[in-house]
Amino acid sequence: MRIAIQGELGAFSHEAALRMVPRCTVVPCARSAEVFDRVARGSVGGAVIPIENSLAGSVAEHFDLLLSRDVFVQSEFQLRIVHNVIATPGVKFADLRRVFSHPVALDQCREFFRRYPKIEPVAFYDTAGSVKHVVEEGLRDAAGIAARHAASVYGGKILKAGIEDNKQNFTRFFFIRKIRQVRPRANKTSLAFSVKNIPGALFKALSVFALRDISLSKIESRPVRGRPWEYVFYVDILRGEDEAARNALRHLGEVADLVKVLGVYPTAQGHKGQ
Amino acid sequence: MRIAIQGELGAFSHEAALRMVPRCTVVPCARSAEVFDRVARGSVGGAVIPIENSLAGSVAEHFDLLLSRDVFVQSEFQLRIVHNVIATPGVKFADLRRVFSHPVALDQCREFFRRYPKIEPVAFYDTAGSVKHVVEEGLRDAAGIAARHAASVYGGKILKAGIEDNKQNFTRFFFIRKIRQVRPRANKTSLAFSVKNIPGALFKALSVFALRDISLSKIESRPVRGRPWEYVFYVDILRGEDEAARNALRHLGEVADLVKVLGVYPTAQGHKGQ
Repeated sequence: MRIAIQGELGAFSHEAALRMVPRCTVVPCARSAEVFDRVARGSVGGAVIPIENSLAGSVAEHFDLLLSRDVFVQSEFQLRIVHNVIATPGVKFADLRRVFSHPVALDQCREFFRRYPKIEPVAFYDTAGSVKHVVEEGLRDAAGIAARHAASVYGGKILKAGIEDNKQNFTRFFFIRKIRQVRPRANKTSLAFSVKNIPGALFKALSVFALRDISLSKIESRPVRGRPWEYVFYVDILRGEDEAARNALRHLGEVADLVKVLGVYPTAQGHKGQ
Repeated sequence: MRIAIQGELGAFSHEAALRMVPRCTVVPCARSAEVFDRVARGSVGGAVIPIENSLAGSVAEHFDLLLSRDVFVQSEFQLRIVHNVIATPGVKFADLRRVFSHPVALDQCREFFRRYPKIEPVAFYDTAGSVKHVVEEGLRDAAGIAARHAASVYGGKILKAGIEDNKQNFTRFFFIRKIRQVRPRANKTSLAFSVKNIPGALFKALSVFALRDISLSKIESRPVRGRPWEYVFYVDILRGEDEAARNALRHLGEVADLVKVLGVYPTAQGHKGQ
């Protein structure tokens, strides 16, 4: 299956795509809107998109696109973000004087730069792109910091693995398709709803879950563009398509202006605190 | 007063700082944690930090730092994000072949690049930094895209102003200080609280506001690092230090594990839908 991602080949999204859809062919896209448009018009079988990071928070643009485009979440996945120093083959670690990467990645590897003060961190616009640059230019004193997969994509060599300061660095990904499909053992539902005039309305909206003992694992408000005092709420509930969830969604329809189920899927194993 | 910002001089935070604290001296810092640490230990009088953008969403790291550091929000401000093409003085618009900026800024100016197909967008790690680079190198065929203020800081010239596609592009900034100070007419409170075991607890927590007709203008959940199933909620309520708010906060203390008031301040004028 052809799977669109936002960003360069070798990016963390590429790694997540291979884990979520084994043997897929990854189609890199420059922009997120392009990723969603390709899925909606069927020029790819699906897409794998980051939705939130445990350190950096939600990817707001992707929530907005899930709401506005005709796509459905099929599964979720938690990827541990592991940063690696990747250089041109033949270059030794002792040769390194500069290491390129995206500023966020450099900032997540401060301990590494403290331990090796001869190596200067240099900001680059992309993690996988930094490895591509170093290898294509054949630089002898430089490396990039990126996902392990960037090494195989661009023919680089990993000189040091796992240099990130915080091991609690996870990104949650969604696999989205055009068709509405619910896997067996789906026990989590992502939905969006809008209400006017908080809090009366928000409190009522949340009561539809509380009254049925349905747990939430995420809630987030987003202002509606150009409409002050109107909000969209993104909520994850820990239920699949059972009777309680159906009743709650019907009840929610009575109190909210708009309700959209973004996907129903099995909870990702492992890191649950998302 | 000396005001710390994250990023280079001439960044949008610099512009916001000058609007929020007239005649301040801006102290640029590479990292956000450094900004907060400087405020907490008193080496600057305060700091101006972006907290959310209408297109990109919340700056999760800044919410986490507001919770963990000993600082207090004094005021909020909504800055319209206006992108400008800035070049070395003497360079004409017709000479431009490349325009550098941060990928997010380039992506917000797609219509500009469609209209001028001879100009290539080139990713750079920072908006203000792209202007600094172009002017310091004296490039004759290139410009940067950045805040208006970057032109005066680096001696560049604005060749085209307001090239962003979406005029509904606002960033909300906080002015933070070490001291707890509440301005007259403060009518908004930002707070954080944590509860276990959603939704019973979240629903109860929100009832303390709903029962007193206190409106919320923001709610967001963040998982607590390393503690699955524990969450921190960031909430803005549309009340200052009146009796209803005091009662609600006392009541919240009964049902939440932790409550921290991040700041009490007057609502920013203008764009209210945040």
